[in-house]
Amino acid sequence: MPDTWQDIAARKQRQRTDRIPKAWLVPTSYLPRTNSSGNVLDVPRRCGILTSQEIHITETLDATALVAGLATGKLRSVDVVTAFCKRAAIAQQLVNCLTEIFFEDAITRAKQLDEQLKETGKPVGSLHGLPISIKDSFKVKGYDASVGVAGFCFKPATINSALVEVLLEQGAVLYCKTNVPLTMMALDSHNNVFGRTLNPANTALTAGGSSGGEGALVAMRGSPIGIGTDVGGSIRIPAMCNGLVGVKPSHGRVPYAGQEGGALPGSSKIGIESTAGPIARNVRDCEMLLRAIGEGQPWLFDPDVLPQSWEQQSSLNTRSPTLKVGQPLLVGIVRTDGHVTPLPPIQRLLDEVARTLRSSSSTSRNAVEVVDVDISRLGPQLLKVFNGVMSIDGANTWFDHIEATGESLSPWLATRLRRRPQKSLDEVRKLQAQKLELQTEFMKVWEESGGYWAKDGKQSSGVRTLDIIICPGAPHPVPPIDRWNTTNYTSAFNLLDLPSGMLPVWTFLESDMEGDLPSGEPLNGWDKINQGLWNDIDRKVYVGSVMSVQIVAPKLMDRRLVESMAVLEKALAPLREVSGKASKL
Amino acid sequence: MPDTWQDIAARKQRQRTDRIPKAWLVPTSYLPRTNSSGNVLDVPRRCGILTSQEIHITETLDATALVAGLATGKLRSVDVVTAFCKRAAIAQQLVNCLTEIFFEDAITRAKQLDEQLKETGKPVGSLHGLPISIKDSFKVKGYDASVGVAGFCFKPATINSALVEVLLEQGAVLYCKTNVPLTMMALDSHNNVFGRTLNPANTALTAGGSSGGEGALVAMRGSPIGIGTDVGGSIRIPAMCNGLVGVKPSHGRVPYAGQEGGALPGSSKIGIESTAGPIARNVRDCEMLLRAIGEGQPWLFDPDVLPQSWEQQSSLNTRSPTLKVGQPLLVGIVRTDGHVTPLPPIQRLLDEVARTLRSSSSTSRNAVEVVDVDISRLGPQLLKVFNGVMSIDGANTWFDHIEATGESLSPWLATRLRRRPQKSLDEVRKLQAQKLELQTEFMKVWEESGGYWAKDGKQSSGVRTLDIIICPGAPHPVPPIDRWNTTNYTSAFNLLDLPSGMLPVWTFLESDMEGDLPSGEPLNGWDKINQGLWNDIDRKVYVGSVMSVQIVAPKLMDRRLVESMAVLEKALAPLREVSGKASKL
Repeated sequence: MPDTWQDIAARKQRQRTDRIPKAWLVPTSYLPRTNSSGNVLDVPRRCGILTSQEIHITETLDATALVAGLATGKLRSVDVVTAFCKRAAIAQQLVNCLTEIFFEDAITRAKQLDEQLKETGKPVGSLHGLPISIKDSFKVKGYDASVGVAGFCFKPATINSALVEVLLEQGAVLYCKTNVPLTMMALDSHNNVFGRTLNPANTALTAGGSSGGEGALVAMRGSPIGIGTDVGGSIRIPAMCNGLVGVKPSHGRVPYAGQEGGALPGSSKIGIESTAGPIARNVRDCEMLLRAIGEGQPWLFDPDVLPQSWEQQSSLNTRSPTLKVGQPLLVGIVRTDGHVTPLPPIQRLLDEVARTLRSSSSTSRNAVEVVDVDISRLGPQLLKVFNGVMSIDGANTWFDHIEATGESLSPWLATRLRRRPQKSLDEVRKLQAQKLELQTEFMKVWEESGGYWAKDGKQSSGVRTLDIIICPGAPHPVPPIDRWNTTNYTSAFNLLDLPSGMLPVWTFLESDMEGDLPSGEPLNGWDKINQGLWNDIDRKVYVGSVMSVQIVAPKLMDRRLVESMAVLEKALAPLREVSGKASKL
Repeated sequence: MPDTWQDIAARKQRQRTDRIPKAWLVPTSYLPRTNSSGNVLDVPRRCGILTSQEIHITETLDATALVAGLATGKLRSVDVVTAFCKRAAIAQQLVNCLTEIFFEDAITRAKQLDEQLKETGKPVGSLHGLPISIKDSFKVKGYDASVGVAGFCFKPATINSALVEVLLEQGAVLYCKTNVPLTMMALDSHNNVFGRTLNPANTALTAGGSSGGEGALVAMRGSPIGIGTDVGGSIRIPAMCNGLVGVKPSHGRVPYAGQEGGALPGSSKIGIESTAGPIARNVRDCEMLLRAIGEGQPWLFDPDVLPQSWEQQSSLNTRSPTLKVGQPLLVGIVRTDGHVTPLPPIQRLLDEVARTLRSSSSTSRNAVEVVDVDISRLGPQLLKVFNGVMSIDGANTWFDHIEATGESLSPWLATRLRRRPQKSLDEVRKLQAQKLELQTEFMKVWEESGGYWAKDGKQSSGVRTLDIIICPGAPHPVPPIDRWNTTNYTSAFNLLDLPSGMLPVWTFLESDMEGDLPSGEPLNGWDKINQGLWNDIDRKVYVGSVMSVQIVAPKLMDRRLVESMAVLEKALAPLREVSGKASKL
């Protein structure tokens, strides 16, 4: 008789627990009680497992600072890796964010890297000795890439994913993999094998998905930087839920080959491409990682990756041969997707972001200009085509995987996912044509002459081009568990294949609980559900959660995206300070 | 009663004839007789229509020289454009290479450009005043893009193709479009509307396809540089047939949006992408055009184009951060695709190319190293998947177009093309998976450690990487009309999406008629047909035709491809000289 999924899950969880040294077990008094709501972010510091040096390494230093210290030998990799292994073990016990644990391998490798640096005087690569956590869907030789599916467990990978190879060549140390939702098409990271990942800032709120384990781990400072994947928001949504920076690159920048995605081979080529990217505590860490990946010549590892290093990409200061260096960053503000109207606190966020940027000194080196951009007539089309492309297979392959061991659907999926007929070739061809049409139409959004800009009163040349767009990451704040609503605010940019990132701006305060919805009927069923996240809820649940905006750049302008995010991170710092009691450590 | 295709074709041909000024009509004594074989390349010079300045402009100056003269005002655009209009008109009468003619518009625009240069002192763009011919599948507002299909005639385009917009912004002057085969899936440029394009060097041989009109026109010097498209060899094959240089870029380099390709929208996204590129008389002209297109920020015109100018692409001298500048060009020689064995003169060509490159001075600035590479086990798979991808639609859309006016198939197609069932979504998905697998496998071919290199006796580090590959463009010389055999030597690199180009090497001499086929059975039916091009033919037909090799670079290394082709053009010049009586003007 084959194993039931319950048997497999029990064995898999035992395996995971056994890989945590006894000395790193958190005293039960510190563990969150079932159904409690609360903030466990400070438990690692308080629970007595970490030394003060380990607290310093994991809290004070960001990934960029760690890399600098490791490359020069000021920091030993074994110390840094051990610190993050310990803190990841603690995080796992608090918020259930890990899947595969390979601390021993990591510490062994860290020692080797330390030796090598000592012997040769040279770091192995641009990530020498840095621990990096990765989403469970990446393959690491010798460990499962089960993505929380019982039927995929205890089948260790025989190859490394392309990105894993690149990271290892650059000297990174991999030490754990992180939790995902069943099917990776959900926005809460729950599956039957590993259970649910909790949001460490508020265990009543969702940690997001599908890279939710990554988001929770980085928020806990159990990882200096993590790598997720994103086909509809799966990097940006957990970044938003955990108050972090997340970057979804364009397709073709970061190797994606050799993933366990649960889909049949070739599916993404007739559907939509997922991309891999960083989740980190600030923009410079994301830039450091993307630059390091580019230095690793990733095009030699994955035929879909473009041969263009970070240095070879257009920088913000060379954005166009016709633009002067030092010209202000031209930002388009998008307030709604036309499908689901953002709730009052999101509208206030966008208003304040626009106001702050407008008032930023025009003489500053990083001056910003703002125009309002209305893409609301494109939003519903983007959603329709995205949903079409995502359902080509009718979820049949996933149901086959799940039913093989009798698993049931995770709660968020239970009301949403069912077997549907596979689409016909003609339907798929039409979806691809519509996708291309929308990509072509969206090119006009960047151009002043394209018909999407609001008249901004200023004398206009008619030939200006947006550098980036700022828009909501969702039409609601970080919602309670299993209540994430639409993904259109993020998935639209997967369909368009535009690089985009999430940037934390401020903390939801009690005063943010004010504000009424517009009177009148909701736009549609999704809009109605969204209104429920304001009207049929105790808004206190949002207090203390981080509110973020999404930044979008033109296709393959990944470097411009990240450089712009750095400019905005600085320009919006006053808002973060005013909002006061940040949820950060 | 709707028009028959015969009516439409007659009207269309009359329209074309009417657009040629009477003074440019070639005396009938110069016109080739039906079924004659011969060389008409020198007729434009002899027939009395061109002035000596016009002969100088069209013969002595290449596109690069023209652009230099035009930008500085040393040449007037009106003179250059008029000269090429006249010569294109002559070429049309001799080899039937044109479809749409817009000489009047072109001369008007040329005058405007001359005025503008005079007034502002500045050229309009990097192609200021240069006449460029383009394949009929490009749309130019106000003119048909009928691609030789009767049902598409007299439906003038209402938009410009994206590339047309880029060329116009760069100051180019468009003056004619060029002939294609019915369906553009044939290797002879014959259709029922415009008839057959002849090979001007030998009217018994094929002019190639599908950009055959372009090849014949440039060979006649009726265009300084032309633009074709290539999904299986359609730039490279007519370049080879006409002794020209042709470059098929990677997908994403040159805008392809807004083509009339006869396929349903979205087809290329689930099948294979065609690309557009130059056909010219030398490598530097191809580089000039590709650089100019890159300067035109083509990514603002087509969402599929990468934001990377020519300058931003890796150059040959910066091919890798780890390689020293001045390191020899490392060339892999591929002698067979494993599906059809090249005939003796092709084998001799590759031998001589390898020998010449091997003996090129190792102290020279452009030193070349050569290794033998055997991809024969991949060739048959590449063909199988390519054929699968090309037949997704089962030719049903094309048959619908053709049957709408009762057209019959062109001769080459008649025995090859028929309606077949459309493939299922699963079949298409599997083909895409196989394509990706082959792309991934082929990455090993570039690497010394990949298992595809022959031991070359030299001490080897095991870590060398090929810069380019040289292989046959076809397993036979330029064949007689309607006898082009397999396209696998070119189409393999469409499936792999590798940039590749055709480079003329020498002229087939009487001594090249020697050589026997290997004894034993042919490999398969295609191999047998190929053997017929040696054993069941009067080999004299090949004498005087130009023999070319194909150059291939890694994905998106278009600049490296073209720079390498320039190195090889120079290194192989001795072979061209030895082969003596070149068929060129």
